[in-house]
Amino acid sequence: MKTQLNTASRIIPAICLFAIALNPIPSALAAPGTVEQWGIYEIDLNGPTNGNPFIDVQFSATFDNGFKRVNVPGFYDGNGIYRIRFMPDTQGQWHYKTHANVWPLTKKSGEFTVTPPGKGNHGPVRVHDTYHFAYADGTPFIPIGTTAYSWLDAPKSVQEETLKTLANSPFNKVRMLVTEQSGRYHKTFMPPLWPFAGTPPHNWNLDRFNPKFFQLYEKRIGQLRDLGIQADLILFNPYGRWGFNSMTPAQDDRYVRYLVARFSAYRNVWWSLANESSFIRTKTVADWDRLGALVQHCDPYHHLRSIHNGPIPYDYNKPWVTHVSFQSRVAVKSPGSAGILRNIFQKHVVYDEVGYEGNGPARWADFSAQQIVHKFWCGIIAGCYVTHGDVSFVSFGGTMSGHSVPRIAFLKKILEDGPEEGLNPIDSDFEPRVAGQPGEYYLIYFGTETPTNWTFKLYKHGLTDGMKFKADVIDTWNMTTIPVPSEFVTKKKDRYYFVDANGGSISLPGRPYMALRIQRVDNESNQDQSVKPMEKN
Amino acid sequence: MKTQLNTASRIIPAICLFAIALNPIPSALAAPGTVEQWGIYEIDLNGPTNGNPFIDVQFSATFDNGFKRVNVPGFYDGNGIYRIRFMPDTQGQWHYKTHANVWPLTKKSGEFTVTPPGKGNHGPVRVHDTYHFAYADGTPFIPIGTTAYSWLDAPKSVQEETLKTLANSPFNKVRMLVTEQSGRYHKTFMPPLWPFAGTPPHNWNLDRFNPKFFQLYEKRIGQLRDLGIQADLILFNPYGRWGFNSMTPAQDDRYVRYLVARFSAYRNVWWSLANESSFIRTKTVADWDRLGALVQHCDPYHHLRSIHNGPIPYDYNKPWVTHVSFQSRVAVKSPGSAGILRNIFQKHVVYDEVGYEGNGPARWADFSAQQIVHKFWCGIIAGCYVTHGDVSFVSFGGTMSGHSVPRIAFLKKILEDGPEEGLNPIDSDFEPRVAGQPGEYYLIYFGTETPTNWTFKLYKHGLTDGMKFKADVIDTWNMTTIPVPSEFVTKKKDRYYFVDANGGSISLPGRPYMALRIQRVDNESNQDQSVKPMEKN
Repeated sequence: MKTQLNTASRIIPAICLFAIALNPIPSALAAPGTVEQWGIYEIDLNGPTNGNPFIDVQFSATFDNGFKRVNVPGFYDGNGIYRIRFMPDTQGQWHYKTHANVWPLTKKSGEFTVTPPGKGNHGPVRVHDTYHFAYADGTPFIPIGTTAYSWLDAPKSVQEETLKTLANSPFNKVRMLVTEQSGRYHKTFMPPLWPFAGTPPHNWNLDRFNPKFFQLYEKRIGQLRDLGIQADLILFNPYGRWGFNSMTPAQDDRYVRYLVARFSAYRNVWWSLANESSFIRTKTVADWDRLGALVQHCDPYHHLRSIHNGPIPYDYNKPWVTHVSFQSRVAVKSPGSAGILRNIFQKHVVYDEVGYEGNGPARWADFSAQQIVHKFWCGIIAGCYVTHGDVSFVSFGGTMSGHSVPRIAFLKKILEDGPEEGLNPIDSDFEPRVAGQPGEYYLIYFGTETPTNWTFKLYKHGLTDGMKFKADVIDTWNMTTIPVPSEFVTKKKDRYYFVDANGGSISLPGRPYMALRIQRVDNESNQDQSVKPMEKN
Repeated sequence: MKTQLNTASRIIPAICLFAIALNPIPSALAAPGTVEQWGIYEIDLNGPTNGNPFIDVQFSATFDNGFKRVNVPGFYDGNGIYRIRFMPDTQGQWHYKTHANVWPLTKKSGEFTVTPPGKGNHGPVRVHDTYHFAYADGTPFIPIGTTAYSWLDAPKSVQEETLKTLANSPFNKVRMLVTEQSGRYHKTFMPPLWPFAGTPPHNWNLDRFNPKFFQLYEKRIGQLRDLGIQADLILFNPYGRWGFNSMTPAQDDRYVRYLVARFSAYRNVWWSLANESSFIRTKTVADWDRLGALVQHCDPYHHLRSIHNGPIPYDYNKPWVTHVSFQSRVAVKSPGSAGILRNIFQKHVVYDEVGYEGNGPARWADFSAQQIVHKFWCGIIAGCYVTHGDVSFVSFGGTMSGHSVPRIAFLKKILEDGPEEGLNPIDSDFEPRVAGQPGEYYLIYFGTETPTNWTFKLYKHGLTDGMKFKADVIDTWNMTTIPVPSEFVTKKKDRYYFVDANGGSISLPGRPYMALRIQRVDNESNQDQSVKPMEKN
């Protein structure tokens, strides 16, 4: 005991206590002692290097602003440096105090001020109104994601290219693996960094992390954040051949805790427990239950949590699951089928794997751009969300070769121009082609149908006689929006529907992938003086 | 204490202990002392009439055959008669002994012999192979149900008519409410019998049952059994205006226990906790959890258990739920959408309300026969099942006026002629139009599509080169089955599919609602000497 204390004592002079604020824009570093709301306040301490600090040292801090107290886990970052990262959700004065099972890291305390968030900082994304997402400051977040599983295994130049591709894309979320895929997708080089100490393929010390690996992740997560992109981090996957799926439960738990301690202060982090969970034969449902609850327990900020399914879906009703992250090609073939999961789980549903655009030899990788765009629309009309994948980008990033992206950007713009509350199915069990907000906004998607006319007819919720609507004909593939040169005035038809008082209808071109947008014009929020009543067709 | 004992003593001379066997065919009553397997062995005892026997008396029996012991609850049937009904699942000698909290009903014992089941008695229906059903003796049970919610509220003559309609129909299951609907469907008379003592609409003693009501149910359940029809009993519903949804939890539990004690020995009973559960505003999810677990606990025979959903589905993952009983019109519009629930819950799925055939003013009641038949096929091809409803029959039985029934009978015959294991999706996420058993049997349904040709192409599972198949073109609406005058020989096409070695295809008439049946011919079970290879089209 004495020896240990002496060892600790000897380290005291070397302790360096400093706190810096990591801002989203590196050029705008705040002065020490302050951090913006939802920024990262980091406490770095020197501590022991002997033994196995990843296992031996327990280290955390309590942050307190007089109204709330947050316990934040710390982590060992190698070279005798221990860090705690805190993402404050409230402005004003905060105080902290560290706790540890080793002397040099304990009872350190300090004060700092949390300032208003900087430009573009809306906080972490939360579930909003059951089925949607919003940033912590209330700004709607419309998830339009893509997938680049192992982009951090690619050479540095490709990683930079990936960031450029994402910056110029509509995508505001990227699904990415933490641990490496098998090299089958990329045979020209081995990944330069690995999460554990040791050497590939199997010579690992699974009880020691490799801080450099995680430092790269943090750098890239921060860059994604600064681009306004959520990092949907996949903790486990069935693809690697490195033994990371055969760790002991204690090692799995330590890995999860380490990830959470390192990454959770990044406001753009989401936790995806696994990709294709049921393909991971070394894990049972009970393992996922435990790991999901562990993330829920140890993440002080309660970032979004889900798990992506293989052939046997996880039960998304479980309380730790914040939203449904679902793989299905068939469910997004129509709005009616896409809406079933939303109804079943009564949670936000994002179809995180619907097939990849490309010409791959595998049939999950040979979808046309039209099929992908159609799936996006089906999901959206069902009140759900859809994630993109491009065969040339999905494994290691770089550039995308498909043609769905501009159409997805076109759809995103429509959604951004739509109701803040998001789109909900209007009458899902009888007319699943219609989403919107009752009485205010309707988006009707005809999919593979090729109608030449649509008689104005809306389900009754939110409607009364005499409400005025304008309409646009949208070609989802050719990306055109043509206003209908007439207004429509609601009139009750029967116990279910309202029609136009003058029997109005809208001509459609008889092509597939058409949509209609119908917006109320005689209320305050949608007032548009430019629309004049004209003759109806 | 003494007084009580004396009271009990005075009853002793009146005790009448007898056991009779209720056979499926009343004319073939077995001698006392024997009962057929899965028949009803009933013990009747005289007991106290004072106080409230429904509450005051606890009464059960233990049945034992030397290998297993079954505890069976008894019930009070009025007029001082207490009964215990036992459905033995094993042939041979059985012994019983009664237990009670009142002296006259306790420690009665006896022996009886369980004989082989009679003709048509296959035992109760169980879940088979996760997604299907089979009788206890292993005979497949293909549920082809219909709905007659309140047929026991109708006049006796209509009840008899209902039985005749069912007897002449393809239906082998009927969904029926236990407690009455509101009179809005039937304004000409009030139901003649009520489950509780008292008078309608609200003058009830909810602590006393009305045995005559339950006796009628037992008579009808027995008649359904003798017709080979399962009684899917709905314990709670949102329709009545009699206060039966506002009982206390203790009263709800007593009602459930009483139903189980009375009905569970009938081998054709299923438990449906509710119709449209989320419309019952007086019950929470926790109530359904409790009531479902209660049925699971107190039914000695573990009859099938589910709950039918309103707009907010119950979580069918819960352990007490044996199968998914689901209301949806949209989910059964395509096999792809119908299969989602099967995949999610990994349980047998029966779509128990898909819209009713008829011309009702309500849009849930105005589906065409073609729509209903289409929904049946969509559900079946998804490896699920579908329940019929006819507007003229659904409330009070009588006769059916729709045109879907013969088409459903046609489908049922196809299923009966199909593989014993039932139909499973072959490749659901990529080609949801195909169900069957890999390598042996395929049913392909084109639904609203109108193809003129189908190139022989099957998903690889179960296939090797050189396997021979025959095919039939099925018109699901016109009820024709036309053999294709040629055989097909499998040849591997690529990493996913097999085609015909000679490039064979099948002509189709370009009408909707067509199907193909493809069956292996060069194995033992499907050998058919009448099929000769002929020229392919």
